[in-house]
Amino acid sequence: MSQFATDTRVERVGDNLWRGELRRGWRIGAVPNGGYVLAVAGRALSEALPHRDPLAVNAFYLAPADLGPVECRVELLRAGRSISHAEVKMYQQGELRVQVTAAYTDLDALSGETWSGAPRPDFPGWDDCLPSGQKKLEFRERVDIRLASGAEVFSRREPDGSGQFLGWVRHADGTDPDVISLLMFADAFPPPAFTLFGPLHWVPTVELTVQVRARPAPGPLQARLFSRHLTRGVIEEDGEYWDSAGQLVAISRQTARIRVG
Amino acid sequence: MSQFATDTRVERVGDNLWRGELRRGWRIGAVPNGGYVLAVAGRALSEALPHRDPLAVNAFYLAPADLGPVECRVELLRAGRSISHAEVKMYQQGELRVQVTAAYTDLDALSGETWSGAPRPDFPGWDDCLPSGQKKLEFRERVDIRLASGAEVFSRREPDGSGQFLGWVRHADGTDPDVISLLMFADAFPPPAFTLFGPLHWVPTVELTVQVRARPAPGPLQARLFSRHLTRGVIEEDGEYWDSAGQLVAISRQTARIRVG
Repeated sequence: MSQFATDTRVERVGDNLWRGELRRGWRIGAVPNGGYVLAVAGRALSEALPHRDPLAVNAFYLAPADLGPVECRVELLRAGRSISHAEVKMYQQGELRVQVTAAYTDLDALSGETWSGAPRPDFPGWDDCLPSGQKKLEFRERVDIRLASGAEVFSRREPDGSGQFLGWVRHADGTDPDVISLLMFADAFPPPAFTLFGPLHWVPTVELTVQVRARPAPGPLQARLFSRHLTRGVIEEDGEYWDSAGQLVAISRQTARIRVG
Repeated sequence: MSQFATDTRVERVGDNLWRGELRRGWRIGAVPNGGYVLAVAGRALSEALPHRDPLAVNAFYLAPADLGPVECRVELLRAGRSISHAEVKMYQQGELRVQVTAAYTDLDALSGETWSGAPRPDFPGWDDCLPSGQKKLEFRERVDIRLASGAEVFSRREPDGSGQFLGWVRHADGTDPDVISLLMFADAFPPPAFTLFGPLHWVPTVELTVQVRARPAPGPLQARLFSRHLTRGVIEEDGEYWDSAGQLVAISRQTARIRVG
């Protein structure tokens, strides 16, 4: 069993109540990574709903999570033929930490047109990209990142001003990504604002939406993370993720707040 | 009072319970526009919460809304110093139609760095752009749209293949946009997929997030709506909105489903 599967495991403990545990290995500083926390909710939904795959998942982060048990109160909002909707309220020590709303589906049953107006970026493969640095982050024990652009922010403290990181991401234990892990990988890259201002101390996520498009093929994910509009400390972070077969598997957007200096 | 203010008015009818009415004038086909419905929830939140301005608002559309009364059950999730979080469940005839989660703030109190990696697009002003066509849409009684690109989809049924509409949008009664109206304007443009496939019959929104950045100055809003990734019938629609003073006031993203032919 992969470390990710172990660390996002949930157990049904009551009507619409699932219990998980936020484990060490996934923290950025003192706080479990928001994508990892979302993946625990995603796992509960996958077990609770008639449809197993996330199509669109939104999370609002009300308070930083801690290590330890987390209660997931799942409410089925509507069960349709091709989509189920639900919310998850994630509690720790009786306090609501994260509010999740989701549409789940069967990704293999999606049908219709496919088109892309933004081709997969062309950059060197995993072996020819640079480790992201940030070796002191506990999160790097679980997630390996290689950067094709932006790495000099960490190696030489030289922001390139692009608002963009390009690179690869995978489980550190070498296991392949499953569809739930996309919820975690969507919050795994360093904030693109680092390419503007250098590494910042703390970039809290206000809310994050992940749109899943396909079940990933084995191998590392190719990622493009970028920001375009920073307004008085409020910024969006957009992500695009392709699997090793070149297929778009997810896009993401979050609202974050940054404080420079 | 503007038509928009009248048509999004809500009344407190109980503890955490607000009642609005979805009025005619805002429908796309038989269904009230999703942005208009979201604005009614936004109005309730603005009255219910300690902070008055939306910062990030997400809605999942579970079932099409109808004309008539709508019950907004507001739950305050957390009241912080600078941000309040809440959810709104919107019911009609006892059925949950829309689930909204939001972070509200005081936009005038935002402080921090401002930066843009995607400048405001340069295209002709309101008077030099073309009406969008779609005159048969009831929604056009309330919202005027002028297009700088993409109009030939409607006038000559010629999709330009760009995945993008550029143009302007304003209240048809000439009133100026307020901050809540941004939630409506974020769903006002025709789907960018029309520039790929021509006008489609029905493009239902799965979920929509609007990130508000500033209170708009008087005058029409400049808008860029685009899609980049259509995967087996699932597409994102991204919007950027600037006020008449050239200030970015909101960005938006929705997941929609399209069926061609």
